[in-house]
Amino acid sequence: MSRRVAVIGAGSWGTTVAALASRNSSTMLWARRSELAHELNHTHANSTYLPGFELPSSLCATASIAQAVTDADVVVMGVPSHGFRAILAEASPFLERGVPIVSLTKGLEQTTLMRMSEVVAEVAPGHPVAVLTGPNLSREIMAKQPAASVVASEEPSIGIELQNILAGATWRIYTNNDVVGCEISGVVKNVLAIASGMADGMGFGDNTRAALMTRGLAEMARLGIALGGQLLTFSGLAGMGDLIATCSSRLSRNHMVGQALGQGRSIEEITQQMSMVAEGIKSSLAVLELSRRHGVEMPFTEEVVAVCHEGRAASDAVERLMQREARDELDGLFS
Amino acid sequence: MSRRVAVIGAGSWGTTVAALASRNSSTMLWARRSELAHELNHTHANSTYLPGFELPSSLCATASIAQAVTDADVVVMGVPSHGFRAILAEASPFLERGVPIVSLTKGLEQTTLMRMSEVVAEVAPGHPVAVLTGPNLSREIMAKQPAASVVASEEPSIGIELQNILAGATWRIYTNNDVVGCEISGVVKNVLAIASGMADGMGFGDNTRAALMTRGLAEMARLGIALGGQLLTFSGLAGMGDLIATCSSRLSRNHMVGQALGQGRSIEEITQQMSMVAEGIKSSLAVLELSRRHGVEMPFTEEVVAVCHEGRAASDAVERLMQREARDELDGLFS
Repeated sequence: MSRRVAVIGAGSWGTTVAALASRNSSTMLWARRSELAHELNHTHANSTYLPGFELPSSLCATASIAQAVTDADVVVMGVPSHGFRAILAEASPFLERGVPIVSLTKGLEQTTLMRMSEVVAEVAPGHPVAVLTGPNLSREIMAKQPAASVVASEEPSIGIELQNILAGATWRIYTNNDVVGCEISGVVKNVLAIASGMADGMGFGDNTRAALMTRGLAEMARLGIALGGQLLTFSGLAGMGDLIATCSSRLSRNHMVGQALGQGRSIEEITQQMSMVAEGIKSSLAVLELSRRHGVEMPFTEEVVAVCHEGRAASDAVERLMQREARDELDGLFS
Repeated sequence: MSRRVAVIGAGSWGTTVAALASRNSSTMLWARRSELAHELNHTHANSTYLPGFELPSSLCATASIAQAVTDADVVVMGVPSHGFRAILAEASPFLERGVPIVSLTKGLEQTTLMRMSEVVAEVAPGHPVAVLTGPNLSREIMAKQPAASVVASEEPSIGIELQNILAGATWRIYTNNDVVGCEISGVVKNVLAIASGMADGMGFGDNTRAALMTRGLAEMARLGIALGGQLLTFSGLAGMGDLIATCSSRLSRNHMVGQALGQGRSIEEITQQMSMVAEGIKSSLAVLELSRRHGVEMPFTEEVVAVCHEGRAASDAVERLMQREARDELDGLFS
């Protein structure tokens, strides 16, 4: 039986997921702007968020959220965290009972510190939730380069369904039952990508970045475990995998923000020039607040907050991170 | 009290460690070739293995192994795995009783499949052993970029002593008691760097590399744990940290070999053109043999062996790795 898929949000990643789903399933992509929906339908392109790629002609777009989700068997949410609740609330009256909702969003809700799966449980109770995450840069997936992702859900059947809808010859989808760990990984890695970008912007090389990423992963895992996630998730595709891709990539927005900070530019100047959202800037505040509530030490997040929101120089922040007391490596690494 | 340090082997990493140690301690560097010892002493440079860096004038070199190790308080072994046993056997008659021996070598002995710490125990029994490892590209450490390493030893006092000898403002040394895990990390990462380099050579990007590194780390951990290592070591600087640096770096020899293979060049052609040893080529055979003895599945190592020693095309190997059955991510990840 063919499944009908709705993808909400026509940014680069939402468009990519919709394009891939449309190979296997009837897929409708919702774009907020009707001009973008029109472009998607008539030129099979998304020149704003995914320039240079031809999209499948079978992919349909709409600016009507009701049209997008009515009769959908699966709804995929690909909007930034700050719009997630409002857009899901708009969509939810039109959802069939029990339709699974899949989050692509790697952020926390600023005001409540909720993960997106928690927002779903509140706005659309009764709908099973899944999270799609992993080392997934849109342009590389669109270019059919080999990649792997994770679908996390407490209900194994959703994971298997998404494997069927999304997986192709070059994209492997693994399943995982650790929703909390996968979401926290996705949120914290954006913060860590800013820190790693700062070191790159200062001209440091692979040793420095590798050390920062390794110590940063420990901080991610500490928070995730405190919230109920599983240690191994952080060593898998959602944790380490996504962290590596994001911190290595010249295509990552969070990495670009960090790099510009490391080169001495101000956060105001950087954000004014970006057309897309770098989730890590806002997430850093929410992550820090969450870490304090749970008594988890997160020195990287503290430094990113200080640089992005309190005027500390990136060079000071990187120096502070590298000069923390050397000690037994595993002492407190993940606990 | 000032410590006297002997570093055996004047390759790029041995020379780097000697240069750093000479800031804090009287340090003697042994070079096999007397011309190199002469150059080190008279021009404070190592133009073969560390071109472009001025070495401290306090660093002394010798081609006499007896002179190098006599009266040393710590002996650091920085020679390739295939020469380790013979050179240590030459040195051992001159060692003071109980002098710690530190291995920098990231390989296994081909004929016995022994780790270097096991070779030390056999050749120089009674000498405590330590392993220095982590994300450490010589040129970046020499350039005083921030970096972090691990000293692994069952005797905590050696780790603390090495911290004192080596650590400087930009180089943090952590301690760890998991010698097995640290050594296996150092060996397997060279094999994985060849695999990751193959994907890069084929033109794949950050997603592919991140996925390969993540699944590869799982394979490293499986072997390490089977041999008695600790899970957390593989998520730390010795495991993940060194893997990231090696697989990301254009400076890593193993990565370069993989990249050339991915571009379709033959292993014979590549090795003929290299002046330095890429440990991963030989290590892959030893690691595969070790994995079979312990019943551990290592698909990456299998593919690297097939490409480096059995004529399989790198493109076939990468495709086989990416097309392995998608399944529950954590199922068998580290067990």
